[in-house]
Amino acid sequence: MPYINIKITREGVTAEQKARLIAGATQLLVDVLGKNPATTVVVIDEVDTDNWGIAGEQVTRRRERGR
Amino acid sequence: MPYINIKITREGVTAEQKARLIAGATQLLVDVLGKNPATTVVVIDEVDTDNWGIAGEQVTRRRERGR
Amino acid sequence: MPYINIKITREGVTAEQKARLIAGATQLLVDVLGKNPATTVVVIDEVDTDNWGIAGEQVTRRRERGR
Amino acid sequence: MPYINIKITREGVTAEQKARLIAGATQLLVDVLGKNPATTVVVIDEVDTDNWGIAGEQVTRRRERGR
Amino acid sequence: MPYINIKITREGVTAEQKARLIAGATQLLVDVLGKNPATTVVVIDEVDTDNWGIAGEQVTRRRERGR
Amino acid sequence: MPYINIKITREGVTAEQKARLIAGATQLLVDVLGKNPATTVVVIDEVDTDNWGIAGEQVTRRRERGR
Repeated sequence: MPYINIKITREGVTAEQKARLIAGATQLLVDVLGKNPATTVVVIDEVDTDNWGIAGEQVTRRRERGR
Repeated sequence: MPYINIKITREGVTAEQKARLIAGATQLLVDVLGKNPATTVVVIDEVDTDNWGIAGEQVTRRRERGR
Repeated sequence: MPYINIKITREGVTAEQKARLIAGATQLLVDVLGKNPATTVVVIDEVDTDNWGIAGEQVTRRRERGR
Repeated sequence: MPYINIKITREGVTAEQKARLIAGATQLLVDVLGKNPATTVVVIDEVDTDNWGIAGEQVTRRRERGR
Repeated sequence: MPYINIKITREGVTAEQKARLIAGATQLLVDVLGKNPATTVVVIDEVDTDNWGIAGEQVTRRRERGR
Repeated sequence: MPYINIKITREGVTAEQKARLIAGATQLLVDVLGKNPATTVVVIDEVDTDNWGIAGEQVTRRRERGR
């Protein structure tokens, strides 16, 4: 029954990588807490780099500086 | 003043259906808790089926198998 | 498979009222979108009135003024 | 280390305005709580007006009436 | 820079189990997407069983029936 | 109509500090986007340091090491 939300920047994540995130997060809840995978939900949000900030700055600008 | 967030897969939900979700969720808070609808906010997130997992698996793959 | 999050102020909501919110929100997704209730998740967050603001002001203070 | 999520309707917000929201929200946490900006995250979600409701009504319809 | 939110029912999860969830979710983002762990944030929300619903029913009631 | 969610660790934040976060976040949306403060909602979540992780580690442990 757990609900896991993964927020990442939208930078070319593939469907295969998303599948691995979903499988891995679900397995983590099984391994650590014995949760039932059948009702474990994982939602991945991809966020434009203009809409994500860290250290007070847009990721877009950090990427321009090679960070 | 309640805030309601509805997350669903992005699979052709119409504007009319969204309007019904918004009206229904707002009315539910009025009926059960007597909340003021004027400041009740509903936000609907539509999530790509590649980005939604249940039972450790992408919804995209489940749909391919007819589930 | 929908996920519904209801945020309300913590002001004496009863277990029975929460049960009605859960049942009502689940039924709304069945009625409007034909979703499967078995995998529909509802999470209710109760937030202290000190931690909820509207119009730039804490709800605690609004309640003190009878609003 | 704070995490700030700002949800607004998708109505032509510019990259420059987003940069100001990110800088301003980060600075607010520094000023009020002395938080470290280096690990402060801000995520802006832009939501279609069909998917945002207030007072039980889609913002799209409110905009049509000039509200 | 990813942000991961794990919502589970409040049913005696230990500090050690939470530490394993945090370490495991962070490592998952490193393994699958090569993310920097230093700025990866994990937040665990524990939700009272009265406030969590599935299949239209409170978890509290499901637990009473041994589910 | 914006919705702003601020997540911070639960470490003795006062009601006065919360009031300043609410007022400041609301004003930010007025200043940058001309939003109507009357329907701007701010919700502050305080999260136990056991439940917040960064760099794969619980904040509780980081605090023990003086970080």
